Amino acid sequence: MENYIGIGTYAKEWIMTAGKRLKSSFEENLNIETKANANDLVTNMDKEIEQFFLDRITETFPTHRIFGEEGMGKRVTDLKGVVWIIDPIDGTMNFVHQQRNFAISIGIYEDGIGKIGLIYDVVHNELYHAFKGKGAYLNDIKLPKLTKVPISEMILSLNATWLMENKRIDHQILTPLVKDVRGTRSYGSAAIEMAYVACGRLDAYMTMRLAPWDFAAGSILIEEVGGEITTMSGNPLDYINGSSLFVSKPGLHQEILESYFHNSWPAVNY
Amino acid sequence: MENYIGIGTYAKEWIMTAGKRLKSSFEENLNIETKANANDLVTNMDKEIEQFFLDRITETFPTHRIFGEEGMGKRVTDLKGVVWIIDPIDGTMNFVHQQRNFAISIGIYEDGIGKIGLIYDVVHNELYHAFKGKGAYLNDIKLPKLTKVPISEMILSLNATWLMENKRIDHQILTPLVKDVRGTRSYGSAAIEMAYVACGRLDAYMTMRLAPWDFAAGSILIEEVGGEITTMSGNPLDYINGSSLFVSKPGLHQEILESYFHNSWPAVNY
Repeated sequence: MENYIGIGTYAKEWIMTAGKRLKSSFEENLNIETKANANDLVTNMDKEIEQFFLDRITETFPTHRIFGEEGMGKRVTDLKGVVWIIDPIDGTMNFVHQQRNFAISIGIYEDGIGKIGLIYDVVHNELYHAFKGKGAYLNDIKLPKLTKVPISEMILSLNATWLMENKRIDHQILTPLVKDVRGTRSYGSAAIEMAYVACGRLDAYMTMRLAPWDFAAGSILIEEVGGEITTMSGNPLDYINGSSLFVSKPGLHQEILESYFHNSWPAVNY
Repeated sequence: MENYIGIGTYAKEWIMTAGKRLKSSFEENLNIETKANANDLVTNMDKEIEQFFLDRITETFPTHRIFGEEGMGKRVTDLKGVVWIIDPIDGTMNFVHQQRNFAISIGIYEDGIGKIGLIYDVVHNELYHAFKGKGAYLNDIKLPKLTKVPISEMILSLNATWLMENKRIDHQILTPLVKDVRGTRSYGSAAIEMAYVACGRLDAYMTMRLAPWDFAAGSILIEEVGGEITTMSGNPLDYINGSSLFVSKPGLHQEILESYFHNSWPAVNY
């Protein structure tokens, strides 16, 4: 029987330390002038942060496994036991171009069940956390349960790519919905966009291709505030291979399925 | 001969005071539960902030005129003399839904020439300012001149609406460009999106319909860092009636015109 309060205390301490390291990397690299250098920076920092977590987890919880974007843990093909699913920098393009709007994302799973989700929006200093069954928090303020909104009052986050001809989804399926919502946004970090749905800044978020480490923390947050979360095809997320993603306030999945998708979830080529 | 250093000092002091008022409005209204109440809040705050500027400007600079979203100044049909073009809350949908990602925007013009631009991203406490001929600043740090980037490395801000059939522009003109850029974003505040181009967080921003108070401050920032700014049809902005907008790092206007618009700027139904 794992002690998730204890694990969560370590995880929060480590994510804050890793965040400080990412912030200080900007100060060391104020003179990045070329994109090539910027790309080196993000690759190096991604690896350094994943190694930081790997070292601490291995030392403190030797039976836990690590499943991360950089693939520095052992190859993970199942979620047996305790697995930390880590994205050291979610939103690397924002990290390079904006030095903000990126996050560290950590989901801790036991036998495939999400136990702890942590998303740290480093530059805005917003730490989201959720323990299964105990609710979700933004900087230690409990987030209220989500409630339904009308489609006409929805702010939907989705990338413009999905509204043009693309290889993942028939974009024409999405346009009637996008015409009816109040507004669209796009921030370029799945972890932050899921955290924004969890805290009500967005009403829904759709995307056609994510890796497990992009949504492993966010999905725990969303469940704890009563949101809905499936692939765009209405199936459970795939925490090994990744999948598309559709998260929303409660009731919107069903309404969108009926009113916009003609009771048939769209096919997505993952 | 106006003293723009003096005018700018007042304007900065007032914009910070107005920002504090907007932040405190969230605390007073923590219990807004319905959208109707939220819409009342934004309308009331828009009016209160515009009135705040109107009172101070009238008292301190009795010959200056005010041109604002709420229309509380006298009707403005020309830009003769000194005119303050004010948007008390740019990004009202974000103000209501997110309590962030909105800005106060003030452009001060003399005989149609932009003299001072101020954009205050209230919640992130980022004040952008520019004095004509003196450069642009973010929180008193001088912003470097913008330099050209390749299309393939561009982050372009544009709302998803413009990539679907819409009444302003033939969306098919835009899709080849959007396919070639590195990424797209959308933040829902023209003032913030222009400020992001000025400080390099975005490489370009396009939108099909703005009012003068949406871009009056941003255009001064963009000019001071050597960016390019026209309507989507390649014309000067219309500071009386509003217009579409295309701002970018230098060189991108010409390259996009040649490589994506076949040397013919798109028509926009304003």
